[in-house]
Amino acid sequence: MAETTRGVRVDWEALKEFCEEVLRAAGIPEKDAGIVAASLVDADLAGMKSHGVTRLNDYLLRMEQGLMATTTKIDIVRESPSTALLDANDGWGQVASEKAVELVVEKAREVGSAWVGVRNSNHNGTAAYWTIKIAREGMVGICSMNTSPVMAAHGSKLPTLGTNPLSIAVPSSSGRPVVLDMATSNQARGKIILAAKNNDPIPEGWAITSEGLPTTDAREALKGSVLPLGGPKGSGLAIMLDILTGVLTGAEFGAQMPRMYDDPQPQRVGHMFSAISIDAFMPMTEFLSRMDQKERETREGPPAPGFERVSMPGDGTHERMAMYRESGIPITDEVYADLLAAAGRYGVSPDTLDSGRIPREGTQRWGHR
Amino acid sequence: MAETTRGVRVDWEALKEFCEEVLRAAGIPEKDAGIVAASLVDADLAGMKSHGVTRLNDYLLRMEQGLMATTTKIDIVRESPSTALLDANDGWGQVASEKAVELVVEKAREVGSAWVGVRNSNHNGTAAYWTIKIAREGMVGICSMNTSPVMAAHGSKLPTLGTNPLSIAVPSSSGRPVVLDMATSNQARGKIILAAKNNDPIPEGWAITSEGLPTTDAREALKGSVLPLGGPKGSGLAIMLDILTGVLTGAEFGAQMPRMYDDPQPQRVGHMFSAISIDAFMPMTEFLSRMDQKERETREGPPAPGFERVSMPGDGTHERMAMYRESGIPITDEVYADLLAAAGRYGVSPDTLDSGRIPREGTQRWGHR
Repeated sequence: MAETTRGVRVDWEALKEFCEEVLRAAGIPEKDAGIVAASLVDADLAGMKSHGVTRLNDYLLRMEQGLMATTTKIDIVRESPSTALLDANDGWGQVASEKAVELVVEKAREVGSAWVGVRNSNHNGTAAYWTIKIAREGMVGICSMNTSPVMAAHGSKLPTLGTNPLSIAVPSSSGRPVVLDMATSNQARGKIILAAKNNDPIPEGWAITSEGLPTTDAREALKGSVLPLGGPKGSGLAIMLDILTGVLTGAEFGAQMPRMYDDPQPQRVGHMFSAISIDAFMPMTEFLSRMDQKERETREGPPAPGFERVSMPGDGTHERMAMYRESGIPITDEVYADLLAAAGRYGVSPDTLDSGRIPREGTQRWGHR
Repeated sequence: MAETTRGVRVDWEALKEFCEEVLRAAGIPEKDAGIVAASLVDADLAGMKSHGVTRLNDYLLRMEQGLMATTTKIDIVRESPSTALLDANDGWGQVASEKAVELVVEKAREVGSAWVGVRNSNHNGTAAYWTIKIAREGMVGICSMNTSPVMAAHGSKLPTLGTNPLSIAVPSSSGRPVVLDMATSNQARGKIILAAKNNDPIPEGWAITSEGLPTTDAREALKGSVLPLGGPKGSGLAIMLDILTGVLTGAEFGAQMPRMYDDPQPQRVGHMFSAISIDAFMPMTEFLSRMDQKERETREGPPAPGFERVSMPGDGTHERMAMYRESGIPITDEVYADLLAAAGRYGVSPDTLDSGRIPREGTQRWGHR
């Protein structure tokens, strides 16, 4: 399951700078452009290509249609010492999330813990990007958001749920937070899209047709629904996360949420963040030493036959980050063309992007997610 | 997968009263006895028999061995406006959890939201019992706890994880909170125990042997480990919940936690609770009306072919509660004998239990969980 497109590699800093240039040229305020570009490139560094720079042009196309605001005006709708509800007014998801994370951390620092919600927002990148930020402040970070309906609740014919992800991150003595970021679907829809492209069948249990019938045909699956992780459990978790991020915040939710790629309405996504100060429970040194023990005993499982290692959540993310920072971020020809198209519409020179291209030898196959 | 033992049915109030009598006779303070009995009988009402009165004698046996304190002395180790850390000093999990829930609700009422942890505790019944209590206060309730290691992390040969459950509950206009309560394992270990008893094979993916190899042999599975929900996702979630409930609270965690039934050491379980005041986000009437929409659209999925309905999380629990309140709680002969054994050791008459027996016609098969 890898793309065979040849593609290029681009230095991550050049890629980020280029995204910022395009965003600024499109009228996004300078600070906001930096926030969005950082989130996109971070997703590519993490190997979450579906949340990476491939979205830049998609975001801008929605903004050009008037479905997303250029300047993200954030209202604090309600506030208490340990909660806040923000309204992003159809602005950029990353800009609203940056503000929400600042606020949740500030509140947790003051009163021990906090929950901050955001309504009327848009796609905000990976959930892990935000929980890692919270963890780096010496806190447990929790983040969820609801997404457009592509998943059938357990036993449902039609999709009434997003693949609503849940991320939890905590500090670790390695300096790299331990971080979980899981969609509540059985498999990423991206894998089904890829199987459809390659005329490959998909395993049973991944998806149902538009008639609600099990299918191994990737094309039928794309017209139908993905299935939740482990049936009722993943379905129940996705429902509760939709309630927490959508119903409780006043955002759109469930079957009604417009889809980013298909629907000409603002999405009005909801996000929810929590921060728990480690210091409110024990000194950080003690927590880190206990984390060392937890990490050690998990890794020394030992590996079962057929497995090379036992990972802590986020191991793969941190490894890919180190690798792509070093070797450059692999970009498919299609995404590269998309980036140039976005730049072209705003009169941005391709120089920064082109200058970031890293020459490489031979043909490589990029992992896809 | 149903038990064929004939068993009896007992009126839930008589069963609760009987458990209280036994607990009081064993020296548990009166208020605490009421708290524990209510939790046990509630689990049976919910159909979670593994967390019900079957545990009464098990708890008392551990107390008699000096592994659990008779009187639960609760220290507040740390406290901030929106957090608290309690030490249960090897007391009763339910008594500590009742206190933690009171505190988390009180704090959320004052400052909007809160997180309260408990360390050095014991089994505290179902997670849903506690989140439903929080939801009935007009809040989102979240609860997790860590359990003794019976589950292998993804790719691990040996069990370094409990099946650490996660429960989330929210108010609903029906008066019955919508409530998720999911273990992070692929299947309940109880199903494997039952398959071993019945000489039935178990499906692939449920468990591995003590050598870390896949197995469909229920007996080999019981000597080995259960597997996490959906591989890396359930594994990662269980790890993060162990960190939240065990590492962060100062409780025991991971591979080191003693097992309730086998190990002659205090378990020192950790619990974690969060409460989020709905009022801090929107008026309750608005929330309930949005919940109505969420419930309606979920149920009207419509059901896929082969399904009778699409459920909201907790539907089954509420239905079983209504049914068993009406018809009496099914108790197997083995559990009935266990209850009498516990009563006998403390000179408690079986009258209350016997008087609660409900006559019934014909042979029935009880569902098992």
